[in-house]
Amino acid sequence: MLRPIFNHTLNRAYATAQRLPSHVRIVEVGPRDGLQNEKKLLPADVKISFIDQLSETGLQTIEVTSFVSPKWVPQMADNAEVYSGIKKCPGIAYPVLTPNVKGLESAMKIGAKEIAVFGAASDAFSLKNVNCTAAESIERFRPVLEIAHKNDIKVRGYVSTVVGCPYQGPIKPVEVRKVVEALYDMGCYEISLGDTIGVGTPGTISKMLDEVVRVVPPEKLAVHFHDTYGQALANVLTSLNYGIAVVDSSVSGLGGCPYARGASGNAATEDIIYMLHGMGIETGVNLEKLVLVGRFICQKLGRMSESKVNRAWKEPQSPKCDNQQ
Amino acid sequence: MLRPIFNHTLNRAYATAQRLPSHVRIVEVGPRDGLQNEKKLLPADVKISFIDQLSETGLQTIEVTSFVSPKWVPQMADNAEVYSGIKKCPGIAYPVLTPNVKGLESAMKIGAKEIAVFGAASDAFSLKNVNCTAAESIERFRPVLEIAHKNDIKVRGYVSTVVGCPYQGPIKPVEVRKVVEALYDMGCYEISLGDTIGVGTPGTISKMLDEVVRVVPPEKLAVHFHDTYGQALANVLTSLNYGIAVVDSSVSGLGGCPYARGASGNAATEDIIYMLHGMGIETGVNLEKLVLVGRFICQKLGRMSESKVNRAWKEPQSPKCDNQQ
Repeated sequence: MLRPIFNHTLNRAYATAQRLPSHVRIVEVGPRDGLQNEKKLLPADVKISFIDQLSETGLQTIEVTSFVSPKWVPQMADNAEVYSGIKKCPGIAYPVLTPNVKGLESAMKIGAKEIAVFGAASDAFSLKNVNCTAAESIERFRPVLEIAHKNDIKVRGYVSTVVGCPYQGPIKPVEVRKVVEALYDMGCYEISLGDTIGVGTPGTISKMLDEVVRVVPPEKLAVHFHDTYGQALANVLTSLNYGIAVVDSSVSGLGGCPYARGASGNAATEDIIYMLHGMGIETGVNLEKLVLVGRFICQKLGRMSESKVNRAWKEPQSPKCDNQQ
Repeated sequence: MLRPIFNHTLNRAYATAQRLPSHVRIVEVGPRDGLQNEKKLLPADVKISFIDQLSETGLQTIEVTSFVSPKWVPQMADNAEVYSGIKKCPGIAYPVLTPNVKGLESAMKIGAKEIAVFGAASDAFSLKNVNCTAAESIERFRPVLEIAHKNDIKVRGYVSTVVGCPYQGPIKPVEVRKVVEALYDMGCYEISLGDTIGVGTPGTISKMLDEVVRVVPPEKLAVHFHDTYGQALANVLTSLNYGIAVVDSSVSGLGGCPYARGASGNAATEDIIYMLHGMGIETGVNLEKLVLVGRFICQKLGRMSESKVNRAWKEPQSPKCDNQQ
């Protein structure tokens, strides 16, 4: 049977004309965002070994720890020891989280070159956590950024609850835009948009990004997804199409317990990199090396990797790594 | 600080101009593709209850069983009993898999109105499984389709290994196109493109679809993804952008063991529906009801749901369903 070859011009044009970035920078947040949400406390030497191994994979940014009160986050009480203990490889940024001037001063004492501050798009979330509105909480970062900039320290801004809040429900895109704009105006060199409870889909993420890219160019934005509802990779794909080329993730999806209902793990770095490389987008990361680091840290935590790539990865040379499931 | 509002015309146009389908039909393959890959054998009455519950969720197509030799697939030995035992709700299609004329005759005896045949895009896969090339295996379906059509039975075609083969490695898009075209020419009303081993990414899926839509219009295509490398939802999203509006999936990701490395579960219906609804795409499925059916069958199988939506779903009215983790 002879049939004319269809030419679905529109569909093919869609597929080929996508303005995808050619390179994506991964911000590995496993040592901080991941480990601070794991129940098991790891000793500082294990964390140092973990971060040093990550430094060998080709990652360009590794968030090391946070300078917050050990009363609130006991997992990060060893912040100075860990930061001082890791190798600082040339070309790799090692940011630390600092919520206030006190945290910044501690970070400066041990020589941090980059810090991050974090606000929320949700007033309810902000009131619950820091007892002020979202806008007020951003205003509190002003002295942090001033001191940081005087000392040539780069500042990254996090915005959490960008599509949904556990206390308030759905968040209006315009609320996200306001907070993002405030942090950008204050001098954050990059703003990371966090779907903290992982409820976003390509639908809600698109609506939020439509609003945010009106005030901050996509090359100054990063995305930070949690995989609570399995949407993280689809959301990363959606964000790439906006020209966003920085993605936060956590090796082996550290930070969420696979057995607890609703546990909100980070998107797994291995799975994101597998997708990006499959799309011809470079990351500079050696995926095989990263899989082994994921297995190392999961073994130390006594848990299964939440990365599907990690679980499926065949690795005949190292059968001793085969028992992490 | 005053700053002009950026107008990222291109990005916003991208986001809003996507030619996404307004409705997606889910083909629920859990009772067949799911259960035939589970170790535990379930009694026929449990399968019948499972399918009857699925019929109450709003699904339009539920693949019931397969008529293959019980020597090869003991899980489906009760095919006639299950098919005869389920309620046939108006408006719902209940296809069964029939690899040959013998299977078709058995299916006709119990009154099947729709069947499916399955070929592979990979010669190596085909040779290993049915001892002939991909093209030869398709040719063997000719008498099946002829008899089916004489008896007003609709025939759906499956093509497996559309991007990768466990024996042959990567599959060329042109090979997929040939097999899809042959099945379409033979009279299959719909062709389902299966990434059997779950290795595809939006990159490889796009390249494959670019080739396939040259010979078969997207409204005659379905996609069938496995989540081995966590890429299923990103691949569904990619396929929607080609105008494909039929997606095969398995409630709670039945068919892959969460503990075995490389186990290749189907994409979870709950997670796909959550994404589609979040994008404003209708499916007609009541997600809450579907979550409960997923918990029912997972309890019967003694396993954890592989759907992240199912694990995270909060359901205060039915705390008794809370112990499926």
